[in-house]
Amino acid sequence: MKTLGYYNGHIDEIDRMTVPMNDRACWFGDGVYDAQMARNYKLFALDEHVARFFRSARAVEMEPPLTEEELKALLQDLVRKLDTGNLFVYYQLTRGTGLRRHVYPDGKANLWVQMFPMEVNDGKVPVKTISAEDTRFFHCDIKTINLLPAVMYAERAKRSGCHETILYRPGGRVTECSHCNVHILKGGTLYTAPCDNLILPGIGRAHLLAACRRLGVPVREEPYTMDELRAADEVLLTSSSNLCVRVSELDGAPVGGGDPALFERLRSDILSEFYGETE
Amino acid sequence: MKTLGYYNGHIDEIDRMTVPMNDRACWFGDGVYDAQMARNYKLFALDEHVARFFRSARAVEMEPPLTEEELKALLQDLVRKLDTGNLFVYYQLTRGTGLRRHVYPDGKANLWVQMFPMEVNDGKVPVKTISAEDTRFFHCDIKTINLLPAVMYAERAKRSGCHETILYRPGGRVTECSHCNVHILKGGTLYTAPCDNLILPGIGRAHLLAACRRLGVPVREEPYTMDELRAADEVLLTSSSNLCVRVSELDGAPVGGGDPALFERLRSDILSEFYGETE
Repeated sequence: MKTLGYYNGHIDEIDRMTVPMNDRACWFGDGVYDAQMARNYKLFALDEHVARFFRSARAVEMEPPLTEEELKALLQDLVRKLDTGNLFVYYQLTRGTGLRRHVYPDGKANLWVQMFPMEVNDGKVPVKTISAEDTRFFHCDIKTINLLPAVMYAERAKRSGCHETILYRPGGRVTECSHCNVHILKGGTLYTAPCDNLILPGIGRAHLLAACRRLGVPVREEPYTMDELRAADEVLLTSSSNLCVRVSELDGAPVGGGDPALFERLRSDILSEFYGETE
Repeated sequence: MKTLGYYNGHIDEIDRMTVPMNDRACWFGDGVYDAQMARNYKLFALDEHVARFFRSARAVEMEPPLTEEELKALLQDLVRKLDTGNLFVYYQLTRGTGLRRHVYPDGKANLWVQMFPMEVNDGKVPVKTISAEDTRFFHCDIKTINLLPAVMYAERAKRSGCHETILYRPGGRVTECSHCNVHILKGGTLYTAPCDNLILPGIGRAHLLAACRRLGVPVREEPYTMDELRAADEVLLTSSSNLCVRVSELDGAPVGGGDPALFERLRSDILSEFYGETE
């Protein structure tokens, strides 16, 4: 298969898949998901992603129709159906099916999976960004499919010829981007927003912090502002498909570039881990 | 037909309808909607709802595949296919179909419609409510399908044996409910939150304000707090299916009930308008 769509046991190429109109994804965005990369048919950081997926489900009071171990086995089975092993692997849980009423329906949650070819960004080319006020809800720690603001931030970046939009709350506190976490290096220390309800606890972020520990780079998990970001030695993005990417521009002005050696040590450590575990 | 589902021209009973898995409703909640009531096959306040629907579409940069007049004609055609004329009438626009990428896809937006039997609540029975902090995003003026928090607020109310959850932002400012606007009467004046980005500009709310004008009731569109709500003479809910409903309880304590005559004047004026226009 070139792509794979899965819905409650039914499988086909994604563009041939349909779902019930009354799935609560359709009317309410009433679902949670997780997404990760595979290389050579190996699902990177699978345990971490599946654990987060089940945490998201609990946070919105949804009960998955299978266990963590069963989901991992299913994903490892599905990934082998694809023609290539370098893939975006995505799974979603929605709050069942029923006539549109806000209150929860009876019956089980629905399980969705999609997979299609994608390569990890190796971070060798720096990216441009813009900034915008973060007007999202206060549940950004939960990976829900209520992503309309994220979609609009991503589109705004694309229209500016940029890779991402860096978000800040009123007062200037940097949160994250439309689909990446963002971090800064200053004086040899990594600063990253703490894991509260304003950011997603990224798996890429966790791997960046692990790399810092391995390399002896001090880490401060504390709020920082757009002014501090503009004055940083380096600005870094992480996500599951952008493992460690340097930002070279913000709103049309240069940013970072002041500690390329430390950035490169982190980037190559993180990429080595990814390539090593997916050989 | 007992119910009706419509998707880009295809029609069937809702529970037999399917939609493409790659419709952006499914991955991003990337859609806007409007919803209204019909009685005797007559669509109440159709012009107002369709105008708001197109405003929502513009606010999220979506282009409907038909004009306002064409949509009204379509809805008036579809409503006649149902076995009963007392209906919930819902229409939705999603940002097209394509492999999951945050940035906008090429191609047209998708048009969805659903209709199923529902009666307007005539407001003769007061309702109980609970309260909760409003943790939603800052685009509550746009009728999007990013409704996961609203779903959870509605479920919380149901579990408490209540009809609605009244929401307040930090500091105590009352915004709205999970699917109603909320207003208070105090000293013969109606207080209602202003139409900013924290509340939906409800059509039910607009009809309540029109009733106030007809009846000579002063209106103050300004923020008010939970404390002011608790001390109000009456607390009112409005929506398209709950045209004018009195709140008798908040978080287990009595609320309102201090100006039943004025409430009843408003309620009967609003219901008379609805019944008159849908005879």
